[in-house]
Amino acid sequence: MKLISYTKEGKAGFGAVTADNQVIELTDKITGVDCLATLVGSEAMMGKAEDYVATASASLGLDSVTLEPVIPQPSKIICVGINYVAHAAEAGRKVGQYPVIFQRFADTLQAADAPIIRPIVSHEFDFEAELAVVIGKGGGHIAPEDAMSHVAGYTCFNDSSVRDWQFHTHQYGMGKTFRKTGSLGPWMVTADEIADYRELEIKGLLNGALMQQGSLSELAFDIPHLISYVSQALDWNPGDILATGTPSGIGFKRTPPIFLKPGDVYEVVISQIGTLSNPVADEA
Amino acid sequence: MKLISYTKEGKAGFGAVTADNQVIELTDKITGVDCLATLVGSEAMMGKAEDYVATASASLGLDSVTLEPVIPQPSKIICVGINYVAHAAEAGRKVGQYPVIFQRFADTLQAADAPIIRPIVSHEFDFEAELAVVIGKGGGHIAPEDAMSHVAGYTCFNDSSVRDWQFHTHQYGMGKTFRKTGSLGPWMVTADEIADYRELEIKGLLNGALMQQGSLSELAFDIPHLISYVSQALDWNPGDILATGTPSGIGFKRTPPIFLKPGDVYEVVISQIGTLSNPVADEA
Repeated sequence: MKLISYTKEGKAGFGAVTADNQVIELTDKITGVDCLATLVGSEAMMGKAEDYVATASASLGLDSVTLEPVIPQPSKIICVGINYVAHAAEAGRKVGQYPVIFQRFADTLQAADAPIIRPIVSHEFDFEAELAVVIGKGGGHIAPEDAMSHVAGYTCFNDSSVRDWQFHTHQYGMGKTFRKTGSLGPWMVTADEIADYRELEIKGLLNGALMQQGSLSELAFDIPHLISYVSQALDWNPGDILATGTPSGIGFKRTPPIFLKPGDVYEVVISQIGTLSNPVADEA
Repeated sequence: MKLISYTKEGKAGFGAVTADNQVIELTDKITGVDCLATLVGSEAMMGKAEDYVATASASLGLDSVTLEPVIPQPSKIICVGINYVAHAAEAGRKVGQYPVIFQRFADTLQAADAPIIRPIVSHEFDFEAELAVVIGKGGGHIAPEDAMSHVAGYTCFNDSSVRDWQFHTHQYGMGKTFRKTGSLGPWMVTADEIADYRELEIKGLLNGALMQQGSLSELAFDIPHLISYVSQALDWNPGDILATGTPSGIGFKRTPPIFLKPGDVYEVVISQIGTLSNPVADEA
């Protein structure tokens, strides 16, 4: 299934997208499930959703709803830095023994097609195309060999970053958590439809021109190990997001640097998943 | 007022603590206010709470409720590193032009008197006594001169940290966000009762022995500037937590290092506010 969160006439909903871009509404259709984060946390409920989608008719056009970030309010967004070897080289870093983890707050997310925001305080606004994992079943102390059973699905993520603020100090914190800079969507593709995530290819396009390219087979720390590592420290919750890092080609390491500006469109394209597209606008 | 969040017979509540350690329940007493984070976000509602507390009687003993972290689920916990000059020196860092910011997720919080948890994966479990600011009125792009009007109150925080994980890579992320390591409480003292936060004195005591000591007048980046800096990047929400950094005396820079172990008790004592006490237990 392709699953979305959206609003329609100001009311939050969630549903499944059909092959011809129609929406089968799932809101209020499964007892005890009030949002997508709750749905993905339960295999039983996911089974009920699949059964429902198999026989229900679409009632909305995809273009008649306003998309929300796939999971609008995840309890955690865990990001991984320097996780493609070629990107580590361009960033002047080596891949070490442990993954480089940083964090985003949920209120920095933005939906597909909505503008990502170049802040007032900086024009060093850069793109980072990423594959994001949507966690299904929660838990702690997950062994790598069990980790893929905690993956509900995959979506596209643009971890767009404010470079001067990222390097204000030795901790990335602030440059990675600006308002409306983390776009997530347009939908999640459920894990059962992706035979092997390592076969996924990712691209980042600026106004149609290829900027970033990579294969998920290149990850220095693979998804099972990332899920396992974080779970030693704190539990994953249903709907949490793991952003797996960006391939080489980011803007600020180019000569001359390329930064996002109003009127630009950045697309994250992942095979078998789809395209996340966002225009860029200046903060009001 | 001294304000707390708690549970009583499994039900969440919030209230005010009287001088003789009784609780005036505020749950369901102010229309539209369902938790402490909502209350502190509105000056009008805070006024109503004060009026109510001035005339109401206490109905519970403080020892008859189970404290929760003062704000149980803040949307953001923003932490500041290296913010006392003497601590910067012991950590081998200099205070730079910008504050060192890192983040915690809400599900790493722990209540006063409940055990903070030494993780299975590390025994390098260290203490960090801090003053935490509870944000009242939310907002972005707050000027330093307006920032104190966004402070609802103050509480004690132990930003206890897993040192080997903190230094797994160049980003602190994981070592600062382990499950049940961030204790917050026991209550918040509202801002109107603290004439000048720079007069507050903070201590950290391990089993009664003084480990950390500092004055809030020593902060390299003061509270107005911290609130302002973060607000350039993303909006503060009511109930958000700003942890202002720890004074010198932490365990892992001592010779030999001192780490927390089961059976220990760590206390954060702040003048005009109170004492946050937590035993230490091993993760089950």
